[in-house]
Amino acid sequence: MIQAVSDHHFLNINDLTDVQINDLIELAERFKAGTAQVRLVRPVYAANLFFENSTRTHSSFQMAEKKLGIDLIGINPADSSVKKGESLGDTLKTLQAIGVDIAVIRHSQTGWYDQLTSDPNINLSLVNAGDGSGQHPSQTLLDLMTIHDEFGQFTGLNIGIIGDLAHSRVARSDAEILQRLGVNVFFAGPREWYPADFDQFGTYCDSIDDILPHLDVVMLLRVQLERLNQNAVAAFTPNEYYRTYGLSEERAQLMKQGAIIMHPAPVNRGVEIASSLVEAPKSRIFTQMRNGVFARMAILATLLNQRGLLEE
Amino acid sequence: MIQAVSDHHFLNINDLTDVQINDLIELAERFKAGTAQVRLVRPVYAANLFFENSTRTHSSFQMAEKKLGIDLIGINPADSSVKKGESLGDTLKTLQAIGVDIAVIRHSQTGWYDQLTSDPNINLSLVNAGDGSGQHPSQTLLDLMTIHDEFGQFTGLNIGIIGDLAHSRVARSDAEILQRLGVNVFFAGPREWYPADFDQFGTYCDSIDDILPHLDVVMLLRVQLERLNQNAVAAFTPNEYYRTYGLSEERAQLMKQGAIIMHPAPVNRGVEIASSLVEAPKSRIFTQMRNGVFARMAILATLLNQRGLLEE
Amino acid sequence: MIQAVSDHHFLNINDLTDVQINDLIELAERFKAGTAQVRLVRPVYAANLFFENSTRTHSSFQMAEKKLGIDLIGINPADSSVKKGESLGDTLKTLQAIGVDIAVIRHSQTGWYDQLTSDPNINLSLVNAGDGSGQHPSQTLLDLMTIHDEFGQFTGLNIGIIGDLAHSRVARSDAEILQRLGVNVFFAGPREWYPADFDQFGTYCDSIDDILPHLDVVMLLRVQLERLNQNAVAAFTPNEYYRTYGLSEERAQLMKQGAIIMHPAPVNRGVEIASSLVEAPKSRIFTQMRNGVFARMAILATLLNQRGLLEE
Repeated sequence: MIQAVSDHHFLNINDLTDVQINDLIELAERFKAGTAQVRLVRPVYAANLFFENSTRTHSSFQMAEKKLGIDLIGINPADSSVKKGESLGDTLKTLQAIGVDIAVIRHSQTGWYDQLTSDPNINLSLVNAGDGSGQHPSQTLLDLMTIHDEFGQFTGLNIGIIGDLAHSRVARSDAEILQRLGVNVFFAGPREWYPADFDQFGTYCDSIDDILPHLDVVMLLRVQLERLNQNAVAAFTPNEYYRTYGLSEERAQLMKQGAIIMHPAPVNRGVEIASSLVEAPKSRIFTQMRNGVFARMAILATLLNQRGLLEE
Repeated sequence: MIQAVSDHHFLNINDLTDVQINDLIELAERFKAGTAQVRLVRPVYAANLFFENSTRTHSSFQMAEKKLGIDLIGINPADSSVKKGESLGDTLKTLQAIGVDIAVIRHSQTGWYDQLTSDPNINLSLVNAGDGSGQHPSQTLLDLMTIHDEFGQFTGLNIGIIGDLAHSRVARSDAEILQRLGVNVFFAGPREWYPADFDQFGTYCDSIDDILPHLDVVMLLRVQLERLNQNAVAAFTPNEYYRTYGLSEERAQLMKQGAIIMHPAPVNRGVEIASSLVEAPKSRIFTQMRNGVFARMAILATLLNQRGLLEE
Repeated sequence: MIQAVSDHHFLNINDLTDVQINDLIELAERFKAGTAQVRLVRPVYAANLFFENSTRTHSSFQMAEKKLGIDLIGINPADSSVKKGESLGDTLKTLQAIGVDIAVIRHSQTGWYDQLTSDPNINLSLVNAGDGSGQHPSQTLLDLMTIHDEFGQFTGLNIGIIGDLAHSRVARSDAEILQRLGVNVFFAGPREWYPADFDQFGTYCDSIDDILPHLDVVMLLRVQLERLNQNAVAAFTPNEYYRTYGLSEERAQLMKQGAIIMHPAPVNRGVEIASSLVEAPKSRIFTQMRNGVFARMAILATLLNQRGLLEE
């Protein structure tokens, strides 16, 4: 029922083929609709290692695991011997030795998994829940699922990604895959935060107001407030950011009929978006969180299937 | 089988009617006796958010949840993005979006729930596990249950609440409800710690020795040792407190036949009470903890029933 | 099926008889082989209280508990009121009152359980997961199980325990029991770290190279790097330690056919042992971790059986 991901890990979404991505979206939608069900052939154990905090992603993975019937071994990296100099590889081999099948990891090091996937002694499945300035592939998948849920397909959609493109863990992956799937991608936001090589994925516009009327999806990125308050880095305050790039109620009037608002959250209300819009009818922000559980169920179920842990 | 609490939340016990309180006590007693059983119509998910630590209350809620078959989504607010500026409301909406049905919350802000209950986008059930200098309604319920277990009813009982009445989260609620249920309430303790408006609920006595022989229940309150050691606040040391207000073995001799000792714990042995009395036959201190699990099962089951999550 | 441990606790492995130890090893091996199965007569609750961190031991106990179907009440002593002055005894009585059957405890105080086992009000089962400079009996049991798995018996084996003998929580117990079971025990390592009274359990050798060719088991102990870097305590750097006492590839060539390497982990690769040897065919380091789950299942199942909580 489920296609392969890659080497029984889920690390970098850009490595997936279009077919694999569509299979994951379809499976996620079936979990959401209640039409996909899985049964484990034996008890399965996962450990969620969040070296960086993330209430949202962590609790979403927990819910996905519980809904699949996976047992959790609770480890807090902040408390653990991991911090006392043990390498991540040795920690994972320990977990594997005690019987853990899947490790979901968020780590500040970009590409934390690079040396681990080539280690022949690491057999458990690794899931990337965010690596440094790298990827956040389960977030990208839930973004894709949310767009697909809304429009039924990707080809020809106009999608604008707006904000701190340079420091976002999802902007690059989202843009690359959306373009691959036939979307017209637009970018807006401070030019200081626009990576020049994004030109290969879409079109940069100085003014958000110019593109808003054409977009099917207004995808806002979170601004790190620390960044706004450092004058060396940014030339504007939160208020100035809102005035220039924020989705105010006035700007939202420019959006076309049927267009939706997305944001990976947590939202800075009144900075990236007017507080009143967060739960407006055209917002899909909490829908994204809801979809995240099903997207993660699809990821985990696909890995379990590859390991032969699902009943046919 | 179970009456309504209030708007599918459990926040302030003084809002409950006598009938509702009695129903909760009765249900708790049936859980304790093993004569009440519940079955969930689908998997139910709870999150316990303890922004202030509490081993006792936290583990008691966990046990109640497990005994009801509720699945827990583990979140440590100390680690979470909650601390990074996200509002409590947005955190709860996130949990709701991923499928959490009930949030049990302890928070340092008095009335943390005030704006949340009027937010139309918050649908999950909120349980107050202690709010600032406000309430601790599940503790009040277990206190009531313990008294009811012992005496079969409330009318005409003499109950003394002794100690730091001003800073206790249960003194005011306990006193108000006990009086409403027909109890004669007495207070003792340092006058500096006696809130003048408590006169509406009972009678203040300077000397604990004067009231002890008349009491059916000697309800001691925990003293914050920090408070005793600040000379600006209190004029006595822990030893002096014990000498003047502590339940020593000598004082316990004054208690009448059949009277019981209560304390919300943790106990400062040798300050509020002689260490030897904590587990004496007339003490109900550990019985209170045991009852706490059943009281919390009653609270949670009542909320589940209101949400249609219990089988008939 | 299972013999008694001692007073329904598992605290000090040296108190066990040879028969009890062999029964535990045998049960652990049956859990590993999948030939022992247990069923609980009612839901059973455990709390793991790790006052000192230990990813390895903590996650291993969790896995053992889950495999036995035990429910966990999650408490983090670092967050808890335990740190606010409540005694360990009162914390345990609280857990007992809310329905916890077993507490697994790691604590920095040597013999933390000394006064608790004589307290008539403490009825839950206590499991020692490491006490100060005292014991680590579940580690000793998994060491014994790993040796037994390999050689089928103990009598006449030559086992060398190498490293920081003075500060290891397992060296003394392992040595004492191995000698009791008929093993010839040898010690090596810095003389400053050799406790004189170890002479009663085996033979000290200055040079690791002298004993290596004779050993069936090379049991390396972890070196606390803090200790190596304090000049007042040790006269050598990590590199010097490795050169003098570390198991290098060259030294490993001296090992006899069929001999195995053990280490309680976490390993300092390149200090106690060459990194390339950690997962070499003669290493049982990750096997020890794997066995740890089954050893702990044996310990817990034995206690459950004593409490009448296992179906016949």
